[in-house]
Amino acid sequence: DRRPDVIPRNLPGDHISHYDLNKLASTPMAVYNKEKVLILTPVSRFYDDYWVNLLKLTYPRELLELGFIVPRTKDGDLALKKLEKAIKQVQTGKKENRFSKITILRQDTDSLSNQNEKQRHALKVQKDRRANMALARNSLLFSAIGPYTSWVLWLDSDIVESPPTLIQDLVSHDKPVISANCYQRYYDEENKKEAIRPYDFNNWVESEEGLKIAAQMSDDEIIVEGYSEIATYRALMAHFYDDKGDVNTEMELDGVGGAAVLVKADVHRDGAMFPSFPFYHLIETEGFAKMAKRLGYQVIGLPNYLVYHYNE
Amino acid sequence: DRRPDVIPRNLPGDHISHYDLNKLASTPMAVYNKEKVLILTPVSRFYDDYWVNLLKLTYPRELLELGFIVPRTKDGDLALKKLEKAIKQVQTGKKENRFSKITILRQDTDSLSNQNEKQRHALKVQKDRRANMALARNSLLFSAIGPYTSWVLWLDSDIVESPPTLIQDLVSHDKPVISANCYQRYYDEENKKEAIRPYDFNNWVESEEGLKIAAQMSDDEIIVEGYSEIATYRALMAHFYDDKGDVNTEMELDGVGGAAVLVKADVHRDGAMFPSFPFYHLIETEGFAKMAKRLGYQVIGLPNYLVYHYNE
Ligand SMILES: Nc1nc2c(ncn2[C@@H]2O[C@H](COP(=O)(O)OP(=O)(O)O)[C@@H](O)[C@H]2O)c(=O)[nH]1
Ligand SMILES: Nc1nc2c(ncn2[C@@H]2O[C@H](COP(=O)(O)OP(=O)(O)O)[C@@H](O)[C@H]2O)c(=O)[nH]1
Ligand SMILES: [Mn+2]
Ligand SMILES: [Mn+2]
Repeated sequence: DRRPDVIPRNLPGDHISHYDLNKLASTPMAVYNKEKVLILTPVSRFYDDYWVNLLKLTYPRELLELGFIVPRTKDGDLALKKLEKAIKQVQTGKKENRFSKITILRQDTDSLSNQNEKQRHALKVQKDRRANMALARNSLLFSAIGPYTSWVLWLDSDIVESPPTLIQDLVSHDKPVISANCYQRYYDEENKKEAIRPYDFNNWVESEEGLKIAAQMSDDEIIVEGYSEIATYRALMAHFYDDKGDVNTEMELDGVGGAAVLVKADVHRDGAMFPSFPFYHLIETEGFAKMAKRLGYQVIGLPNYLVYHYNE
Repeated sequence: DRRPDVIPRNLPGDHISHYDLNKLASTPMAVYNKEKVLILTPVSRFYDDYWVNLLKLTYPRELLELGFIVPRTKDGDLALKKLEKAIKQVQTGKKENRFSKITILRQDTDSLSNQNEKQRHALKVQKDRRANMALARNSLLFSAIGPYTSWVLWLDSDIVESPPTLIQDLVSHDKPVISANCYQRYYDEENKKEAIRPYDFNNWVESEEGLKIAAQMSDDEIIVEGYSEIATYRALMAHFYDDKGDVNTEMELDGVGGAAVLVKADVHRDGAMFPSFPFYHLIETEGFAKMAKRLGYQVIGLPNYLVYHYNE
């Protein structure tokens, strides 16, 4: 007794679209129900392997829309060029391989000039970077989400490897917000072999200590996770990976990163966005998780489900 | 040296749109610059006079988009029917009179069944109503705003009279958020003549007392303005109307109502939405004003610029 998907009903001779939000489903049977998924990626650099991995995703292309936001920097110009070239190849190829819609935005806010991994991660720089990223994510979200969107997949441009069934896998958990665990491949000099290590520390469970620190902060201060300057003792999902564990193991989170997060579109439509100002002393993706929770939604992480970050 | 308006650039054979947010202007010369205005109206009841007034607005129709969200109630069904009929008449009429796009959403959240003015305004009921309205406004906003939208005009469905130059007048102030003063016509029994009185008390300036009350509240409590149960002593714009004053007089506000508010689309795109949860102890339009301010934007009211609310 499932209701049909959203069917825009058009009156004659014009551009009137009707959408019944009640019939817009986000279900574990997303493919069967032809649910539209919008993949959103802020792009400061274009990585070939991101694109190769994206093209490997097995969710039907006619149900996939893409949205990109590119900063107004030299690196942004270059990324845009590469992105356009990659897109053109797919969208002028076989009809059945084309994405149903692609939106590319140029950012209006000033971007911080490109930095390497170490510079980017310095605590002082992080706060400005993350506030700026929050604005970029919001612009992208508000511009690209449609009344027919069922799911939004946030996928960073430097995620170069994921299971091809990424969307179906995340969808199957049927959660409002669900985050994969973001690791990085590297060469282990000591043991002389390829290995993996945690990369994204923004997926975490709140701690007594974290709450205590927040309580003592002034309204305008923020905590960004993963810095020894602020020892929160939060449980970081990155450390919960168990290579012998069930890949579907779930854990409830209080903060998420943006590397690979699937969100039911209604969570965003209810108002969950990426605060660029301190929201419970959190910003950007971590603030988003808190906002989703304030809206009554569950935020879940999959410690054993890995996606991989580019290694500079 | 104004940059051209947003021009979607399309690659061959597909649906790729480019938008340069930097070139998307929201300026006092909106008509001249062909800036797109999106009028958003939550509609629990359809008033003929709202529609008549809307059609009198002189902003060019080809630059106007409309968005409505209608609750899932008996009254909502009726409102939708009337709305569709009214729309059909305009959109099948002369080409130059048609709106450029119209989106109609049916709400997915449960709506509180219709209530009369007095029931609606009871404090206990208000909190649920306003939280519900916040969700409706967010769904409408996220669904209808496009990457090309320059301005969003929030116009309640029971605003039955405004100057025909409403949009141009508000736009000319060039403010991120600007609210008209919402009054009501009535028959003054004492003086036996038609008169006007303040209607919307959600446009206000924060007070010492208001801040004190908020500071003593628990995280989950909210203040809704206009109730003797919570005496905030805030300066209410409704009381600042001066019939001999300059219609362009501006005052800085901390809270706004939703009757007739013009917002630069970038304010929303930066993330300003209508919180359904307590945000600095505020929700819905009042919470929106606070959020816009947290994002660094100015919120302005026009005490002498009147729009009129329906009188049941
Ligand atoms: N639009 C936009 N995207 C950015 C900017 N800076 C980084 N990004 C993208 O945002 C995502 C996360 O940023 P990244 O620098 O990888 O953060 P990290 O992995 O946490 O160090 C990636 O997809 C980047 O390409 C920016 O200034 N503007
Ligand atoms: N979509 C939707 N709109 C509503 C609902 N309740 C009221 N509205 C609309 O929201 C606006 C403000 O509501 P209203 O009842 O007039 O509030 P008041 O004037 O402050 O008493 C008006 O445009 C109403 O038509 C609802 O449950 N759903
Ligand atoms: Mn990264
Ligand atoms: Mn009203």
